[in-house]
Amino acid sequence: MSPAQGLAIETPDNLHAKEWLRAYQRIRAATEAICAPLHKEDYMVQSMPDVSPPKWHIAHVSWFFEAFILKPFLPAYQTLDPAYDHLFNSYYVTHGTPFPRPERGMISRPTVDDVYRYRAHVDRAMEALLSDPPQEHLQEILRRLELGLPHEQQHQELLLMDIKHILAQNPLCPAYRNDLALTPAHDVAALGWHVYPAGVRYIGHDETKEGFAYDNEMGRHRQFVEAFQIADRPVTNGEFLAFMQAGGYDKPEHWLSDGWATVEAEGWQAPLYWVERDGVWHHYTLGGLVPVDMNAPVCHVSFFEADAYAQWAGARLPTEAEWETVAHDAAIQGNFGQGNFVEQDHLQPVAAVQPAEVPGQMFGDVWEWTGSAYRPYPGFRKLPGSLGEYNGKFMSGQMVLRGGCCATPADHIRVTYRNFFPPHARWAFSGFRLAREA
Amino acid sequence: MSPAQGLAIETPDNLHAKEWLRAYQRIRAATEAICAPLHKEDYMVQSMPDVSPPKWHIAHVSWFFEAFILKPFLPAYQTLDPAYDHLFNSYYVTHGTPFPRPERGMISRPTVDDVYRYRAHVDRAMEALLSDPPQEHLQEILRRLELGLPHEQQHQELLLMDIKHILAQNPLCPAYRNDLALTPAHDVAALGWHVYPAGVRYIGHDETKEGFAYDNEMGRHRQFVEAFQIADRPVTNGEFLAFMQAGGYDKPEHWLSDGWATVEAEGWQAPLYWVERDGVWHHYTLGGLVPVDMNAPVCHVSFFEADAYAQWAGARLPTEAEWETVAHDAAIQGNFGQGNFVEQDHLQPVAAVQPAEVPGQMFGDVWEWTGSAYRPYPGFRKLPGSLGEYNGKFMSGQMVLRGGCCATPADHIRVTYRNFFPPHARWAFSGFRLAREA
Amino acid sequence: MSPAQGLAIETPDNLHAKEWLRAYQRIRAATEAICAPLHKEDYMVQSMPDVSPPKWHIAHVSWFFEAFILKPFLPAYQTLDPAYDHLFNSYYVTHGTPFPRPERGMISRPTVDDVYRYRAHVDRAMEALLSDPPQEHLQEILRRLELGLPHEQQHQELLLMDIKHILAQNPLCPAYRNDLALTPAHDVAALGWHVYPAGVRYIGHDETKEGFAYDNEMGRHRQFVEAFQIADRPVTNGEFLAFMQAGGYDKPEHWLSDGWATVEAEGWQAPLYWVERDGVWHHYTLGGLVPVDMNAPVCHVSFFEADAYAQWAGARLPTEAEWETVAHDAAIQGNFGQGNFVEQDHLQPVAAVQPAEVPGQMFGDVWEWTGSAYRPYPGFRKLPGSLGEYNGKFMSGQMVLRGGCCATPADHIRVTYRNFFPPHARWAFSGFRLAREA
Amino acid sequence: MSPAQGLAIETPDNLHAKEWLRAYQRIRAATEAICAPLHKEDYMVQSMPDVSPPKWHIAHVSWFFEAFILKPFLPAYQTLDPAYDHLFNSYYVTHGTPFPRPERGMISRPTVDDVYRYRAHVDRAMEALLSDPPQEHLQEILRRLELGLPHEQQHQELLLMDIKHILAQNPLCPAYRNDLALTPAHDVAALGWHVYPAGVRYIGHDETKEGFAYDNEMGRHRQFVEAFQIADRPVTNGEFLAFMQAGGYDKPEHWLSDGWATVEAEGWQAPLYWVERDGVWHHYTLGGLVPVDMNAPVCHVSFFEADAYAQWAGARLPTEAEWETVAHDAAIQGNFGQGNFVEQDHLQPVAAVQPAEVPGQMFGDVWEWTGSAYRPYPGFRKLPGSLGEYNGKFMSGQMVLRGGCCATPADHIRVTYRNFFPPHARWAFSGFRLAREA
Repeated sequence: MSPAQGLAIETPDNLHAKEWLRAYQRIRAATEAICAPLHKEDYMVQSMPDVSPPKWHIAHVSWFFEAFILKPFLPAYQTLDPAYDHLFNSYYVTHGTPFPRPERGMISRPTVDDVYRYRAHVDRAMEALLSDPPQEHLQEILRRLELGLPHEQQHQELLLMDIKHILAQNPLCPAYRNDLALTPAHDVAALGWHVYPAGVRYIGHDETKEGFAYDNEMGRHRQFVEAFQIADRPVTNGEFLAFMQAGGYDKPEHWLSDGWATVEAEGWQAPLYWVERDGVWHHYTLGGLVPVDMNAPVCHVSFFEADAYAQWAGARLPTEAEWETVAHDAAIQGNFGQGNFVEQDHLQPVAAVQPAEVPGQMFGDVWEWTGSAYRPYPGFRKLPGSLGEYNGKFMSGQMVLRGGCCATPADHIRVTYRNFFPPHARWAFSGFRLAREA
Repeated sequence: MSPAQGLAIETPDNLHAKEWLRAYQRIRAATEAICAPLHKEDYMVQSMPDVSPPKWHIAHVSWFFEAFILKPFLPAYQTLDPAYDHLFNSYYVTHGTPFPRPERGMISRPTVDDVYRYRAHVDRAMEALLSDPPQEHLQEILRRLELGLPHEQQHQELLLMDIKHILAQNPLCPAYRNDLALTPAHDVAALGWHVYPAGVRYIGHDETKEGFAYDNEMGRHRQFVEAFQIADRPVTNGEFLAFMQAGGYDKPEHWLSDGWATVEAEGWQAPLYWVERDGVWHHYTLGGLVPVDMNAPVCHVSFFEADAYAQWAGARLPTEAEWETVAHDAAIQGNFGQGNFVEQDHLQPVAAVQPAEVPGQMFGDVWEWTGSAYRPYPGFRKLPGSLGEYNGKFMSGQMVLRGGCCATPADHIRVTYRNFFPPHARWAFSGFRLAREA
Repeated sequence: MSPAQGLAIETPDNLHAKEWLRAYQRIRAATEAICAPLHKEDYMVQSMPDVSPPKWHIAHVSWFFEAFILKPFLPAYQTLDPAYDHLFNSYYVTHGTPFPRPERGMISRPTVDDVYRYRAHVDRAMEALLSDPPQEHLQEILRRLELGLPHEQQHQELLLMDIKHILAQNPLCPAYRNDLALTPAHDVAALGWHVYPAGVRYIGHDETKEGFAYDNEMGRHRQFVEAFQIADRPVTNGEFLAFMQAGGYDKPEHWLSDGWATVEAEGWQAPLYWVERDGVWHHYTLGGLVPVDMNAPVCHVSFFEADAYAQWAGARLPTEAEWETVAHDAAIQGNFGQGNFVEQDHLQPVAAVQPAEVPGQMFGDVWEWTGSAYRPYPGFRKLPGSLGEYNGKFMSGQMVLRGGCCATPADHIRVTYRNFFPPHARWAFSGFRLAREA
Repeated sequence: MSPAQGLAIETPDNLHAKEWLRAYQRIRAATEAICAPLHKEDYMVQSMPDVSPPKWHIAHVSWFFEAFILKPFLPAYQTLDPAYDHLFNSYYVTHGTPFPRPERGMISRPTVDDVYRYRAHVDRAMEALLSDPPQEHLQEILRRLELGLPHEQQHQELLLMDIKHILAQNPLCPAYRNDLALTPAHDVAALGWHVYPAGVRYIGHDETKEGFAYDNEMGRHRQFVEAFQIADRPVTNGEFLAFMQAGGYDKPEHWLSDGWATVEAEGWQAPLYWVERDGVWHHYTLGGLVPVDMNAPVCHVSFFEADAYAQWAGARLPTEAEWETVAHDAAIQGNFGQGNFVEQDHLQPVAAVQPAEVPGQMFGDVWEWTGSAYRPYPGFRKLPGSLGEYNGKFMSGQMVLRGGCCATPADHIRVTYRNFFPPHARWAFSGFRLAREA
């Protein structure tokens, strides 16, 4: 097996801990690269309770390795400050009392430098542990590392989402970076549809094959998927603007009841980060405020907006099972490799390249809202111990998104990967694709 | 066909409008019978925004017939007061601006007597219309009546739920009625399990057969249901008390994250309406404050509490499809007829009678929380016009409950019937049944 | 002394308890007369936490006599229901736990009929007590009765304020009464000013003279009042409309900071109860919705609005001491007797009759906001026992109003009378008069 | 005149602008000295809406000179960034739209370095202006400078208050400085009283004498002050602890109604920053967490707590006029020079030195809550233009405090100085002194 390619374990016995160490180092370095353009002041801001200050992310991902690997399995390990176990615990209540989430921005000490010292301290200890691992615990260490690395990758994407939200509060619209990869401008073709026949599908992660997956993808099971059609690409900014211009945000008949209440309470009139300047729609991006590319997928819309658009368009959102059915085929066709992920360094969705045999842009660009609520698969089991809080306890009040986005590391995503956000959330790179009855 | 038995339409051509009129009169009378024990003061209270004052219910169900049948189809119809169209519209925004829900308790005029006058006015007009219906509109009138009658039945149940909540605010614990049918006390047997094999099931209302169903039951489709086990009765008060005594309300590890936040914010320590008096658990019922019957199904618990109990018990809640699979069999075995519905006049769940071939108490007693979020079936279509707001726009943020309860009219419920409430709601007669993997 | 004329006590020895009983009966009857036009449904509404349902008022004023006179001094007294002591205690925390104020509208039982039975029960007991009073407690009984009767009068005014607020929530704008005394329409003269010289003034109730006063008027003391001018009548609706038309509600420079925040949060654009219909300003009155009389004093404005108007007009509000200085002179001139009080039965302020030697309309019509915060006089002492909570504990965050209004009983008011409301409150019959430096 | 001693102007004609420049430089340097111990991260935190991030303070005080002096009077002045006029305007709505106060902590750019660059830019321009001032505007420039310098001093005290609140949120309890001047421990004598006779007093700033004062001190006028007694020092921590131990925080009878509601809502059981550790009361200070000195004045109590203590102790708080009467005498006796101000570098109140002829500790240590609401003096006039918003618009809902504290620059305070905070505020260095009737 090769942890560098998908973090997978072929068999536990032939693992090479040093290979895992290299994966650890690579992923830790990627986090730091994301933070490199930040000022210390940027590290401190919590622009809403959902957002964490970058300083907290940097510390928390280190705490994860400390709490779940170093303290249990490296007897000589000395923590840098016992208070960090409280400060940087996110939500593991069976591990101890987490510091209150909405107050993460209130803590100026440890400073950014202190937190990087903590990070280096954890890294040195992880290197020591993986260079000479205790054989009797090696399997469990690697099992937890296999979770800790994608955990850190999730926080890489969260960092980009949160940095965008933080800088967007500032009326100066400062750019996070001025050297992002250019997004090629071109016209996308009119929306096309693919038809899928009815049938029983296997859904969820196949544990008999190699590769890591989260607990929430486990419990592979059969679903009967009735025949359906799916769009060959996500809805674009231009298409969404047509909805806006048709009064979409002013007509309750398109909206779920909770969605309409949110539109009214929040005064939504456009996707998050959109602002009209001299009659032209602009939006804030990690490269600053720029005119909206009408050919790129619409982004930073909530489930409510996605659903309202679909109702207006006489369509609906695909279910998880429909999406996974399509994605399975698309991945086989190599669609995955064309995805606009964080490595493409656009940090913004881009216009679809061309129509294809299979639906395009299934991976990368924007997380796609599905019509499915986030609930456990049959046979779902929590992980043992505090790690059991990783995913399971969030399985209410949220909707599933699929496919990764322009801020996701490519090797983090899978056909079976289930992301989730509340239906009103907009600060993720979230868009959507239409489906309809066959 | 017989509207008196299930409100069903066999074919549109052989309908007898007078038969429908008798059904109308019977159901309208049932609403008034529910309100008979009320004082005028009781009619006025809105104890929380979810609750409506009984006076409002009385008026709103009449408004429904006025707005959707009388005004469109009885040319001579004169409304009693044009303002009522605003005051008694619940949530049909495409019909007009509804009066704000949380302020329904602020309106003392029209008085209770005025509202009953309005009710009688609508009844006279409906009688006139159905006694001599315009042939060209008859089908549409009956189609709407077929919706309006179960609509009124839903409000009968809501009236009982709301009256209970209203009177429960009062430290005097007044009884709604002192002459309720006695609930026979006896011990229930230990929980047993029934096993169901894997297979493709048809889910949803079969439109090829007779009988009314709501739009949200339409879109009959296939689902693959993996093998599962289901409990032979709902969880009892005694079993739930064991959860409480084991510290269930104090241990976050059993709870969904949103559930635990609700427990802390609301200070929940027991089901709604439970109160300890001299070391004995009592609960408020429509017959007043009485000791809790430990053999009766637990009631007035939220989805969060049902889920936490199931996690604590090493089980889970059944999915909608599992529940419907079981209910289909149970109904065939005659289980339905044994249900404790509003006609039994307990207005409180009662202990299960005996174990049986099929799971018991699937119908009546308590609405059973399922593990399924309330989302549209494939092929779901809204009704045309304002009635399209009836069910579809509530399909986010809620969980499905099945089977009816002790406050539901027996002829209102079906195997495919989908009720729904937010996961924190407790004022419905809601309980639950366990399921687990086969 | 004569309790029928001002509830005053000349000396305790020559009191005639039966004379007090007649005063009791007269004042209790006045309360019931105010409620006579109400439907039972009107009795139930609590339109905001500050408002109490009329049913609660009816019960609370009876509770006051029960708690503070009957239970301590009539040994044979049997309460009708022990729970009432909790339900109808307003805010006397040293007496017991009051029922939560915002939930007063949630309690349908006791019914209106029950509450009137309770009222009659208390009346019979009071009649028994006062017909044959225990001599050793007579002075204390009369001292408490002397507080209990103005207490009930205060609730008479509160009833009218609350009934107005309750009915105003109703889009039907129902009139409380259709037979109110007509308000004569005529033009008022332009605003004139009276000058008062500087000097030391005695402020507060003179305890050496006869007559009742509240504890908050006690502590007669000297204040040095610098020379000032005061307007000869309150500001009219027409004058206030000029402020509105000059953009008064849109220009923060006229407003106190808290006032401007309230304007923005509440969306104020006019006094409470004003609404524009076809280009004409109307306001809701106890006689229904009528066009605003531009010559009558503006009413239902907050301290913030009064202060903003004064700033806009280059003036200010008078202090308490200035107001009392003027009122003292005005009362001597007989100004008091011309007041528009509840007995005039307008229940709405009316246009000033004519300019005079002394400032007019100092008494009746509208409570006049002063520029003084409600704080204790030097030497203020609380009453002993639970009655010590009567006034003293409210001496923060409120402003003083003076002079009574069109809903105040004439024999309830005095030159030294101090009313108080928070600066944002508008549901009292509150207006204002301008002052400025000499 | 000497701006270095009290910032006073003797006559406008003999002003030396360079002398003013030295005062400017001295006061600007003092601000920077206060911030010297901060990390950049500390500069970013807004721990509650009342608190501003230190970075914002640093920028805002510079903006004040830019907006009110440089832009109007230095024609060549170029602002560093036009956006700063929006970002760093505190509340001057007639000047432009201020950036929303609660979001001051959301803005990471300009960075701390940027803000110091802005500060230096303003300083250079001020130096240029004052080195060669335009004669025709000199008087107005100096008048505004005379306001701008105490404005900056107020922010020096706010910085210390805010830094304390910011660091106190941190469970690590970091010290702001470890080198504060030691607070000498010794026992204070039992509380003594001084008697003042009744009489007419002149209150407010005497404009005929030299020296600066704020607009809210203007309008010197006469008040009649009845005879009273005043305590010879503020209430100590030890005395306040006795109140706590007597159940002071649990007994509503001592509290104003709003105060008790605050105690219950906030769960107050001790002054702000107090925490019990192993049975010993500690409090957070700018030097870290230390045991409470029972002989030092109690600090960080609200008006509500001060008033409740006084009620419990059978006393009351002095009025403004009483306090100023005493302070006038005390200042003549040299009491002022003994004050514990920011220059003593304790940054914490200390125990009184000894009893004296006049009441002690009238100046410095703790701001003393008075019993007077913050309202304008007779004859109060706003400053012209936007500076009119400086004080006047806050004259509702607040109470007056007098005498300065351990964080106040000594040359900032005066006998007539009126500070003000809402009655629930506790993050100022606020204590109190008792008064009672003579």
